[in-house]
Amino acid sequence: MDNSNSRELLESTISGNSPLADIQNQTDTREIPLQRVGVKGLRYPVQVLDRADKTQNTTAEVSLFVNLPHHFKGTHMSRFIEIFHKHHKNLSMKHFLAMLEEIRVTLDAARAFGEMSFPFFMEKAAPVSGQKGMMVYDCTYEGSVSSENCRNAGREFFVSVAVPVTTVCPCSRAISEQGAHNQRGIVRVKIQCVAHNKCTSFFWIEDIIAIVEKSASSALYSLLKREDEKYVTEYAYNNPRFVEDLVREVYLGIVQFGLSKKEGFPWFSIEAENFESIHNHSAFACAEYRSLKG
Amino acid sequence: MDNSNSRELLESTISGNSPLADIQNQTDTREIPLQRVGVKGLRYPVQVLDRADKTQNTTAEVSLFVNLPHHFKGTHMSRFIEIFHKHHKNLSMKHFLAMLEEIRVTLDAARAFGEMSFPFFMEKAAPVSGQKGMMVYDCTYEGSVSSENCRNAGREFFVSVAVPVTTVCPCSRAISEQGAHNQRGIVRVKIQCVAHNKCTSFFWIEDIIAIVEKSASSALYSLLKREDEKYVTEYAYNNPRFVEDLVREVYLGIVQFGLSKKEGFPWFSIEAENFESIHNHSAFACAEYRSLKG
Amino acid sequence: MDNSNSRELLESTISGNSPLADIQNQTDTREIPLQRVGVKGLRYPVQVLDRADKTQNTTAEVSLFVNLPHHFKGTHMSRFIEIFHKHHKNLSMKHFLAMLEEIRVTLDAARAFGEMSFPFFMEKAAPVSGQKGMMVYDCTYEGSVSSENCRNAGREFFVSVAVPVTTVCPCSRAISEQGAHNQRGIVRVKIQCVAHNKCTSFFWIEDIIAIVEKSASSALYSLLKREDEKYVTEYAYNNPRFVEDLVREVYLGIVQFGLSKKEGFPWFSIEAENFESIHNHSAFACAEYRSLKG
Amino acid sequence: MDNSNSRELLESTISGNSPLADIQNQTDTREIPLQRVGVKGLRYPVQVLDRADKTQNTTAEVSLFVNLPHHFKGTHMSRFIEIFHKHHKNLSMKHFLAMLEEIRVTLDAARAFGEMSFPFFMEKAAPVSGQKGMMVYDCTYEGSVSSENCRNAGREFFVSVAVPVTTVCPCSRAISEQGAHNQRGIVRVKIQCVAHNKCTSFFWIEDIIAIVEKSASSALYSLLKREDEKYVTEYAYNNPRFVEDLVREVYLGIVQFGLSKKEGFPWFSIEAENFESIHNHSAFACAEYRSLKG
Repeated sequence: MDNSNSRELLESTISGNSPLADIQNQTDTREIPLQRVGVKGLRYPVQVLDRADKTQNTTAEVSLFVNLPHHFKGTHMSRFIEIFHKHHKNLSMKHFLAMLEEIRVTLDAARAFGEMSFPFFMEKAAPVSGQKGMMVYDCTYEGSVSSENCRNAGREFFVSVAVPVTTVCPCSRAISEQGAHNQRGIVRVKIQCVAHNKCTSFFWIEDIIAIVEKSASSALYSLLKREDEKYVTEYAYNNPRFVEDLVREVYLGIVQFGLSKKEGFPWFSIEAENFESIHNHSAFACAEYRSLKG
Repeated sequence: MDNSNSRELLESTISGNSPLADIQNQTDTREIPLQRVGVKGLRYPVQVLDRADKTQNTTAEVSLFVNLPHHFKGTHMSRFIEIFHKHHKNLSMKHFLAMLEEIRVTLDAARAFGEMSFPFFMEKAAPVSGQKGMMVYDCTYEGSVSSENCRNAGREFFVSVAVPVTTVCPCSRAISEQGAHNQRGIVRVKIQCVAHNKCTSFFWIEDIIAIVEKSASSALYSLLKREDEKYVTEYAYNNPRFVEDLVREVYLGIVQFGLSKKEGFPWFSIEAENFESIHNHSAFACAEYRSLKG
Repeated sequence: MDNSNSRELLESTISGNSPLADIQNQTDTREIPLQRVGVKGLRYPVQVLDRADKTQNTTAEVSLFVNLPHHFKGTHMSRFIEIFHKHHKNLSMKHFLAMLEEIRVTLDAARAFGEMSFPFFMEKAAPVSGQKGMMVYDCTYEGSVSSENCRNAGREFFVSVAVPVTTVCPCSRAISEQGAHNQRGIVRVKIQCVAHNKCTSFFWIEDIIAIVEKSASSALYSLLKREDEKYVTEYAYNNPRFVEDLVREVYLGIVQFGLSKKEGFPWFSIEAENFESIHNHSAFACAEYRSLKG
Repeated sequence: MDNSNSRELLESTISGNSPLADIQNQTDTREIPLQRVGVKGLRYPVQVLDRADKTQNTTAEVSLFVNLPHHFKGTHMSRFIEIFHKHHKNLSMKHFLAMLEEIRVTLDAARAFGEMSFPFFMEKAAPVSGQKGMMVYDCTYEGSVSSENCRNAGREFFVSVAVPVTTVCPCSRAISEQGAHNQRGIVRVKIQCVAHNKCTSFFWIEDIIAIVEKSASSALYSLLKREDEKYVTEYAYNNPRFVEDLVREVYLGIVQFGLSKKEGFPWFSIEAENFESIHNHSAFACAEYRSLKG
């Protein structure tokens, strides 16, 4: 569906003059504003920032929306793609918001929204042998921009990072003569770093990953040699964590990290899910932080 | 991880007396309450209500949580399963909330939350031949209960229904000499039917499905004979709908339906996604309704 | 697309001078037989056999196909649904093949194929406390039937069962002073139980599950109390298994089980995948067995 | 699990009188060779070849295996990662096989296998306006190499490409007064381009995509303006295709293309799945080709 131009043609077809007018008139009677209208599930190669190499080539799934006032029948779907296509080789957090603002202005909307999910890769050295392999962390940008006339005007930006970890169960360890059940878990951190146009200092995705990995029983690695496996097993056994502990440790780490950057984050949330090795379901915990300053 | 009992043992192991006390004391210093702690991804056979046959056997994926005050180290994971197991053969909307209340009381929590996603099946007759096949609609219950001491005390309950439909693009139809692109789309309706303990009148999932299917270019069927396919093709061509139209038509239908039941729904949302037949991404629109009475 | 009837209509239309007449002629020239044509992704409530309760209500995703000789342009899609709809309340392994045979004959095909995937639920008692919860095992039927004129005529039937388990790494255990990494793994067993019309004796899905669970470091449970968790942790620690061991133990178990039923299975395969708790990828092993008698 | 080194340690441990010594002995008695042992679900950034830009940065999910003779207890999991890590920036079809050969030799195995799935991106111009957007095609490499002593020695290589398309139903069009149901479909082509060390001439993934898109009712685009949407709608309406037609047209195209490259492909398969706009399931067809020369 390309409402953008087909409607212009419709107009000229139907009334012989200015685009969209007739169809727009038809919608007046329903009086229902739409919070979001746009495209979803668009897949693109993109470039994001990366501390080690400056930029990183990866692949993304993207959704782009604008709000639609009640008196407009539809939006211009093809223009989202046109604008995203121009920007896909430069999608730092900052440029992502600039891209959304261009969408908002081009589509003459009060607000524009965007989500972009992508695997973020980091080379990581094994803890003893130092051998290197790639780790992957699924990340998401979520942003919105609005015109000055909007209630709650301004820009908002959130970064989510999913960090896989090991967790050793403290109870299993305490009650068992030997061993302790442990498993892969995943911690999803979502941080608001722009609120009402006010931006917290810049931070790297790598910083968040480090906080989470330090809070778990152990970090994961793609490549572990003998001496590494021994180290990781023993380290994890000596650092048992409930899923609840994991959330709280990450919480404390993010608060502290936020305060080290100007004035702290206005909002963040943490979810931890353990793919229990003794059950066929997950153990889950989450917490949310909201700054009193906000 | 079974914190429920292992912690009791831990206690007696560690201090020789009352369960959990020492470990709970350790957590005091972090002072981080957790919004939700519990189990996720539990799969169970369940029974729900069904207008045609009274009950329907289906299968569900379930998440169950309680809040965890900052001074408790962990929750009792096995008790969620014990209670759900008792109730899985009777999970009407009403009993789902009763089950959550039992979890809340058993775990001595201020709030309990639950989500249950399941395919809901309906036998559906083809529009001309009348031949019958099964259609499936993915549904979700989301509920929460809280103690009287909670801020925003009371019960809340939401039902979501995903209804697949056909949409014919009005623009493509208008600008093309023949034909019009059309595709499968999916409409996700989420309705709050209990707010602050106040329940709107009972309704059937089947009612919501009917509203959505009437709002689309055409309903879908699992079984269509020659005469049905002709009917459906022509009916859809004569009822073109943008994804935006779809959301607005369903919106009007839900408002009207809500008003026909006592006093309307306090809140609902509608999302429509078209799996565009000419693109490799989706067109998307959504709207949200909130009663002024609420 | 309902080729079944629309093509009949096409025929009568074409007997005039329809624009599609040429297309029908074109198929003659392409001379390409299609191995499988039919419907995929059909979701239905079904009933299968169950040792504890005789029948089990569950939900399935189904694919149904026939072969299509080169001189036919298309198949009759709606008839697959008609026939499956008649049979969905009685889908034992035996009736599944009878249903396929009805499809084959109705569609006048040399061969018919079917796949049906469904969660299979079993109530399972915890090893010490005896408390009960439901476990789920994802199963698949795959069958084919053919006319007597076919090369390799006869019926074939395969059952697949996916059994989640715990595995404790023998190496991690051996090299570490304390603890051992362990994780959830999944073992997928696929057994041919009908070959060339010759059926091995009947067996229960429950039998296969028992063989796999016995071969792992430990079975999984949905409900474990304190004493169970201790038992499971220690039992697993004392039964470490590489992913390779797991496959071999299951292999031996299936061979032995097959021989206890008449004359053994003609073919089976075993895949094991460990969701490594110290890596973000899986360890994998597989083996395949083929009877020399076959 | 890192069997590679931990096993070496095990050995030295066992040379004392480790509890694992018995286990090693047990493997001798089981006498079960494993077809494949290795790592699965590894995610990496990779570079592949691209006609427009020479190389393309994308992201991949990778599985790497070797066979394991019955007298070995386990394989060396970390070495797969070491070798893949060295090669991930240069994974043309040819180098992928060289990487597998390095794995085979390093692990002293008779055979090595690899699969790598990745999105392949192509900039594509709209048919009338010429405006450009990115299209994505999910591709897979599958390769195996074997030592000269193996039965069926040599190298094999397969490329799979999934191409999304539009299909207009010929029946719906013929029987309806106006319109015709159409939908997004996906065609999966898998081509063997190396068999028994004999390589067919080099080809581009882009060539296969072109053959499939030409065989459908229409290609898909990420960006279509008014004049493009009209063109695409009318073009598709004038090129109706059953799912069976789609498979046969692609089949003919691949045969012809193969013959244009030296002596044709030894084997290929084609699957087409239509996400029917009037049903909630798919229509499916497939065909397989095997060269008589093979």
